[in-house]
Amino acid sequence: MAIIVQKFGGTSVGSVEKIQNVANRVIAEVEQGNRVVVVVSAMGKTTDQLVSLASEINPHPSKRDMDMLLTTGEQITISLLSMALQTRGFDAVSLTGWQAGIRTEPIHGNARITNIETKNVQEHLNNNKVVIVAGFQGISENNEITTLGRGGSDTTAVALAAALSAEKCDIYTDVTGVYTTDPRFVKEARKLYSVSYDEMLELANLGAGVLHPRAVEFAKNYGVKLVVRSSMEEEDGTIIEEEVSMENSLVVRGIAFEDQITKVTVCGLPNELHTLSTIFTTLAKNNIDVDIIIQSSLDRDGSNISFSVKTKDVENTIYVLEQNKEKLAFSHIEQESKLAKVSIVGSGMVSNPGVAAEMFHVLATEGIHVKMVSTSEIKVSTVVDEGAMVKAVEALHVAFKLGESEVQKVNV
Amino acid sequence: MAIIVQKFGGTSVGSVEKIQNVANRVIAEVEQGNRVVVVVSAMGKTTDQLVSLASEINPHPSKRDMDMLLTTGEQITISLLSMALQTRGFDAVSLTGWQAGIRTEPIHGNARITNIETKNVQEHLNNNKVVIVAGFQGISENNEITTLGRGGSDTTAVALAAALSAEKCDIYTDVTGVYTTDPRFVKEARKLYSVSYDEMLELANLGAGVLHPRAVEFAKNYGVKLVVRSSMEEEDGTIIEEEVSMENSLVVRGIAFEDQITKVTVCGLPNELHTLSTIFTTLAKNNIDVDIIIQSSLDRDGSNISFSVKTKDVENTIYVLEQNKEKLAFSHIEQESKLAKVSIVGSGMVSNPGVAAEMFHVLATEGIHVKMVSTSEIKVSTVVDEGAMVKAVEALHVAFKLGESEVQKVNV
Repeated sequence: MAIIVQKFGGTSVGSVEKIQNVANRVIAEVEQGNRVVVVVSAMGKTTDQLVSLASEINPHPSKRDMDMLLTTGEQITISLLSMALQTRGFDAVSLTGWQAGIRTEPIHGNARITNIETKNVQEHLNNNKVVIVAGFQGISENNEITTLGRGGSDTTAVALAAALSAEKCDIYTDVTGVYTTDPRFVKEARKLYSVSYDEMLELANLGAGVLHPRAVEFAKNYGVKLVVRSSMEEEDGTIIEEEVSMENSLVVRGIAFEDQITKVTVCGLPNELHTLSTIFTTLAKNNIDVDIIIQSSLDRDGSNISFSVKTKDVENTIYVLEQNKEKLAFSHIEQESKLAKVSIVGSGMVSNPGVAAEMFHVLATEGIHVKMVSTSEIKVSTVVDEGAMVKAVEALHVAFKLGESEVQKVNV
Repeated sequence: MAIIVQKFGGTSVGSVEKIQNVANRVIAEVEQGNRVVVVVSAMGKTTDQLVSLASEINPHPSKRDMDMLLTTGEQITISLLSMALQTRGFDAVSLTGWQAGIRTEPIHGNARITNIETKNVQEHLNNNKVVIVAGFQGISENNEITTLGRGGSDTTAVALAAALSAEKCDIYTDVTGVYTTDPRFVKEARKLYSVSYDEMLELANLGAGVLHPRAVEFAKNYGVKLVVRSSMEEEDGTIIEEEVSMENSLVVRGIAFEDQITKVTVCGLPNELHTLSTIFTTLAKNNIDVDIIIQSSLDRDGSNISFSVKTKDVENTIYVLEQNKEKLAFSHIEQESKLAKVSIVGSGMVSNPGVAAEMFHVLATEGIHVKMVSTSEIKVSTVVDEGAMVKAVEALHVAFKLGESEVQKVNV
């Protein structure tokens, strides 16, 4: 019998009714003759409530105590889901992270999984039980309760799937799959039958955080087949795996975009070896996320460095830079807001040097000025005026024929 | 350095403010130069809320799932108390039941503690940390999360005190100690300096459930010195230990009482060997708690058996008896409601055969008719009219000089 791992996030288990709905999904898989491991997150707002309770007591609680506090959230969900299955006659067993053998680094708040001792889970599966595992949590060598940080439940599910050699890992979420672009903006957007791990990583922001990049990396490293699908709709999802099928003939597989981008330019920097590293180390230390970086050619007045940040972070970015003006030795800072990033993604473009040129051509034909460019092996990103964002996406969606390919039946 | 175990129940940790107050109590003990282990329950209504959530999903959840669900309550409290101590500069570590080495029988919902592996707790104490342990919970041999049932947190505290050879176990509660009788009814009621374990067991209902009998038994078996004291008031409490000091010269040490009692008489029973056992087995199977039992002398029409129950249980008692009328072969049932139980308690009465006689004399002098009597080595219970209850208690309080002895300073 095949082992299937299912993962349900916080919104999918946010109420008694939703937990009953999750039970339906589990039962459907059991009735197909599969052995099922279910990984769940804390119910909807539980984590936020616990965080707020903690902040009333201690504005800077230790990470160990926060792990102790927050892991109760998933423990509540696993017990309730087990009750929901049992009341309908299905044998189930709820396991905390440590009971499921999820071993992690001895780090609180953001531990990585080091190993999974599957003995306990395997025994329960062999006894024909549905095994329900608390996501996001594990245990360190010295028996401390740890958490995996952001995307933790996704990572728990993928790691269990890898350790159990599961047939696949179904990630149930509030979207029906991964799309060529955001269907809320572009009505021609089409659900993809399958994407590769790398494409998924680049398209991550298309699905409104549908799957944490860390879990995708994990799945890629262990060859775990992922399926992103809706917890509410009866609809095929999108497969994420290494070998992408026929549809792979498409060079560009999706268009990601994001507004509220600001371009910051630090001008008149000294032509020194460590300038670049000093600037971005300073920003990183202050938790400022920098996206595209461009270093313009040097001239006798020193060099300029431009980078893009989320507009909400601009104020803090300027503040941090000005605080370090003496050390960084720049002359002044320029900024341009109301920008957007539009990216084309596709593993096929590695062997297609003309893809970037095609993108620029399409944008130029539409009269859209490109302010910044950044490329990777499977992605070309451009920064354009915010007002031109949707027009750019629509034009690229047509030009790269993303609306045309038929959605294939997902046999998973 | 002495080890002190402190236990705080659900009402003592029911809010952020109350948790801060508990932190004060802990800090006071640390500043006295003691090593402190704190055992806490779930916050106020948390357990009720979780039970209600479960009942929405499954009216008969498995005990294993309920243990999984409810143990999150104490886990939340330990993390918050640890945060409260750390924000005030005191090093603390929160431990779940299993992390604190509380090993139990492999039973869910009502497990007994089998052993405590104190290594982890000891290490943290040696590192000058306040150790905060989740009450009510443990772990079985096969790594299942278990709970200890009613009075579980009291039992955790006493068991830890025994295993750590603690100097004492302070039970913080919403009363200031154990009284000679209920001060809400008898203004002469006086707080006792100390009582013995057996007296505490008999006086249990004086303190409105101040301490679970199971924890008292445990303390008695391991010679753990208990102190019952208020979590809100700065006042000495009552010591519970085997050797009671000078005050022990008092024969009667407390007067317990309880209203809403009904006397039920099953009439015309056959004079057979198994009659008594059959009746009370039948009642027990239906979860009916019977208190005083009197078998009246046999005559040619068969025997009568009287017993007292709480008035709220009468309807169910009669129903169960009538359902089994054929098997029990009685003729009819009589009942008398609006009764109360008044008991005198004191280990000194073992060697004072006149104590019961003195009690009856006092009641007779007050014109109070005694309906039922039951005696144990350290207690004499009488059932009287509900309307005479307080008068009986007041008269006995005076007659046995309970208001006269001075409260001694509690050096604990």
